[in-house]
Amino acid sequence: MTSIATLGSHCALQVLKGAKDEGFKTILVCEKKREKLYRRFKFIDEFVLVDSFKEIMDQRCANILKENNAVIIPHGTLIAQMSSEEIESIKTPIFGNKWILRWESDRNMKEKLMVESKLKIPRSIRGPSDIQGLTIAKRHGAAGGKGYFLATNEEDYIKKRDKLVREGIIKGDQDLYLQEYALGVSAYLQYFYSELSGELEFFGVDRRYESDIDGLGRIPAQEQIDVDLIPSFNVVGNSPLVLRESLLEDVYAMGERFVEAAKRLVAPGMTGPFCLEGVYDENAKFTTFEFSARIVAGTNLYVDGSPYSSLIYDEPMSMGRRIAREIKNADSKNSLSKIVT
Amino acid sequence: MTSIATLGSHCALQVLKGAKDEGFKTILVCEKKREKLYRRFKFIDEFVLVDSFKEIMDQRCANILKENNAVIIPHGTLIAQMSSEEIESIKTPIFGNKWILRWESDRNMKEKLMVESKLKIPRSIRGPSDIQGLTIAKRHGAAGGKGYFLATNEEDYIKKRDKLVREGIIKGDQDLYLQEYALGVSAYLQYFYSELSGELEFFGVDRRYESDIDGLGRIPAQEQIDVDLIPSFNVVGNSPLVLRESLLEDVYAMGERFVEAAKRLVAPGMTGPFCLEGVYDENAKFTTFEFSARIVAGTNLYVDGSPYSSLIYDEPMSMGRRIAREIKNADSKNSLSKIVT
Amino acid sequence: MTSIATLGSHCALQVLKGAKDEGFKTILVCEKKREKLYRRFKFIDEFVLVDSFKEIMDQRCANILKENNAVIIPHGTLIAQMSSEEIESIKTPIFGNKWILRWESDRNMKEKLMVESKLKIPRSIRGPSDIQGLTIAKRHGAAGGKGYFLATNEEDYIKKRDKLVREGIIKGDQDLYLQEYALGVSAYLQYFYSELSGELEFFGVDRRYESDIDGLGRIPAQEQIDVDLIPSFNVVGNSPLVLRESLLEDVYAMGERFVEAAKRLVAPGMTGPFCLEGVYDENAKFTTFEFSARIVAGTNLYVDGSPYSSLIYDEPMSMGRRIAREIKNADSKNSLSKIVT
Repeated sequence: MTSIATLGSHCALQVLKGAKDEGFKTILVCEKKREKLYRRFKFIDEFVLVDSFKEIMDQRCANILKENNAVIIPHGTLIAQMSSEEIESIKTPIFGNKWILRWESDRNMKEKLMVESKLKIPRSIRGPSDIQGLTIAKRHGAAGGKGYFLATNEEDYIKKRDKLVREGIIKGDQDLYLQEYALGVSAYLQYFYSELSGELEFFGVDRRYESDIDGLGRIPAQEQIDVDLIPSFNVVGNSPLVLRESLLEDVYAMGERFVEAAKRLVAPGMTGPFCLEGVYDENAKFTTFEFSARIVAGTNLYVDGSPYSSLIYDEPMSMGRRIAREIKNADSKNSLSKIVT
Repeated sequence: MTSIATLGSHCALQVLKGAKDEGFKTILVCEKKREKLYRRFKFIDEFVLVDSFKEIMDQRCANILKENNAVIIPHGTLIAQMSSEEIESIKTPIFGNKWILRWESDRNMKEKLMVESKLKIPRSIRGPSDIQGLTIAKRHGAAGGKGYFLATNEEDYIKKRDKLVREGIIKGDQDLYLQEYALGVSAYLQYFYSELSGELEFFGVDRRYESDIDGLGRIPAQEQIDVDLIPSFNVVGNSPLVLRESLLEDVYAMGERFVEAAKRLVAPGMTGPFCLEGVYDENAKFTTFEFSARIVAGTNLYVDGSPYSSLIYDEPMSMGRRIAREIKNADSKNSLSKIVT
Repeated sequence: MTSIATLGSHCALQVLKGAKDEGFKTILVCEKKREKLYRRFKFIDEFVLVDSFKEIMDQRCANILKENNAVIIPHGTLIAQMSSEEIESIKTPIFGNKWILRWESDRNMKEKLMVESKLKIPRSIRGPSDIQGLTIAKRHGAAGGKGYFLATNEEDYIKKRDKLVREGIIKGDQDLYLQEYALGVSAYLQYFYSELSGELEFFGVDRRYESDIDGLGRIPAQEQIDVDLIPSFNVVGNSPLVLRESLLEDVYAMGERFVEAAKRLVAPGMTGPFCLEGVYDENAKFTTFEFSARIVAGTNLYVDGSPYSSLIYDEPMSMGRRIAREIKNADSKNSLSKIVT
């Protein structure tokens, strides 16, 4: 019997709860320092305790997972803590397409896949002297957080860059890249593509809750100017949304193009959950900043299903449960190899 | 057997899912360009393909709907795309009171019904020279979106009006009307009034997610001032809320007054779903800007029921399902004529 | 048979719905002016009509509740409308530890318990001349609302204090206390501690929706400066959130420390629901401003369970239902005395 395993972080609770609800044995590769948290949950059957998640590459983990016929569900922490080479070297079967995770991590490959998908992406700005209007400076490799700032002209940019250099957050211009700031409201579009059925499912949408930028609006304008703060973008949570129904045609179209482009660029393609992350502008046009080629944390909102999954399934269907359902369906047709790498 | 039909837009998915859950045959009057989206959903039994929703007035549509004993569920798109005369000319039975939809479209009738309901409405401002303090200029006929702006004095108003004239969005003062800006936080109060039981049900509350105004708070004050942007109010989605329980007495009172006023002004009254849309000020007093005399898109959040519908019903009760339940109840008592026009 | 009673306000609907779902008889101590609202709900079995909630101390109420073997579920209204001595004098058994409610009301005791729990709290600022950077002035005894303002230096403070004195909201400096403003995003962490099992459950998280401060971000910076408004913090509702999973270890740790500190300082400790209320800063560190030592209104979002309660329970578990479940469990073991005071 296949069992389902994941790293103890990010969306592990949702993923293993979904797996348990689908009848699977559940295994958590768990850092010792977080064991106490995860022991609280009855739906986690077995713990593989590690000092570092990198031990998932080692023989001990590989053996335990193999004995359990485990499939690993990849999520954000795998990508954050291990290099693409390390991930690709993992011997245990990984749900989805582990080769596409590299395309999420590498900024150039990421942009290539978004362009191939004909997604509208933010316009790059070559350098500070080209800044004309609202521009965002992003720090290479920053998983959101410090080092992002807005600027409206070169002088403004220099002032803020110098402040971040003084604070030791960056070394200089080389640590930053510039994009036209996409005015609008953010949305994280959650999808599931089934290699078994060939169908794309739109599963839900969320917004990120970021500190301290999402607290900025509660500080009156004059006070903001007086204290001269540069806000950060550290994700601390997510909140739920639904989209205007007239936008759904395009939501599906973008998802389909992404799936097709992924098939062309990185076989076997975009198997399982993914997310297009961006902003709707004042004309309700979507600009994609990023994608995640695996389950995103915003799905944690929808443990009991979302307003979208409830249109497709007659039981509460979280993304974690959907993944387990796919594995169950593949198992029953002896097609597991179609959905793991 | 009665079947349930609606236009393919706005809240069609929720409405037909609810109808299917209540055992009805479901029919979608669907624009050909959106067929692909709606074909994804298994709960839609039959498609009536059209080039334009106006074809619902034509014999072909009328025949198909008649053969199916269909009742049309009206929503925002019907009102947006057809004039009141056109809607009133539709031969197929429409759930609710189709005569009240005119009162939603016409600004004077809308205000008359809100005043008759003794709802607190925003204070009108006669002209730019009367601006004293935070004022909002709204564009006639704009379904939110471009052409709305805030001004604090006449000079500020003139500057922004001229900018919109230059951009071709308006022609001049005649396209705008002014209201005192109601400071506070927005809330969309969703109700269902049953003509069969004589009872009002408070069904849920949501907030709109509007671009790019809801992204404004994430732009630091100094940058806002530097780029001199005039935000737009284009609805791209909705997010969930609950209200402080001490506000519910007044929520119900406002809803009851609206239902009573509708009975007096436009027989047979406010049958079915409606929404009071406005703002809670710093003293938790509600100012109503608008109402919708039919189901609103914010109900799409609550496909599985809301924290309010769950207090009334023992199964997941969306607004779409509630409508279908009402039709089912009416059918069983041979009282369909009470709830359709 | 035990029955469950509460005051008609705050979260009464959720609490009695949960009690009804657990099979209890439900009793509402209801102000006559709010009877109409609460009569709408079928799950409230009996009404004890009063002119004031203080009548809960009187013999008439005490007798009716005693005849019904009622346990009172305390919530925010009890604390807002009755002094600690009055609450402690109530003869009817109160769910949880009524002695801890005093620690929520009294600012010094509140701070003592937060410090004992080793929670990070805002830094106090001695007086206006010590203001260096973003500071918040809070009005003693204000349940949010008027009289809170931000200041960045002494002059700014004086200007705003004088404005509030002119408006009759405060008398002078003596009505205010100052704290370093905690930049970040707010979160209300909802917990349930079971005296029966010795286990802490993290039940959900929400954000407050406050007027008019949460509408501030929709007013462009220049307009904010022009009209010179001082926003208010009047809670009108709540909205849902989930937290980043990597924060959960610390969420539980804070909750455990609070439970342990409560056991030491105010026997029998923190029985039942409580809430830690604060802000996540840009480094995702939590500063606790307040706690509630009983159920909070944000739980009204989760009548059908939250993304967290759904990880623990296989049925929809609101906080109100969890309380009723605890009473039911205690009843079955004859241990009611462990969870009431």
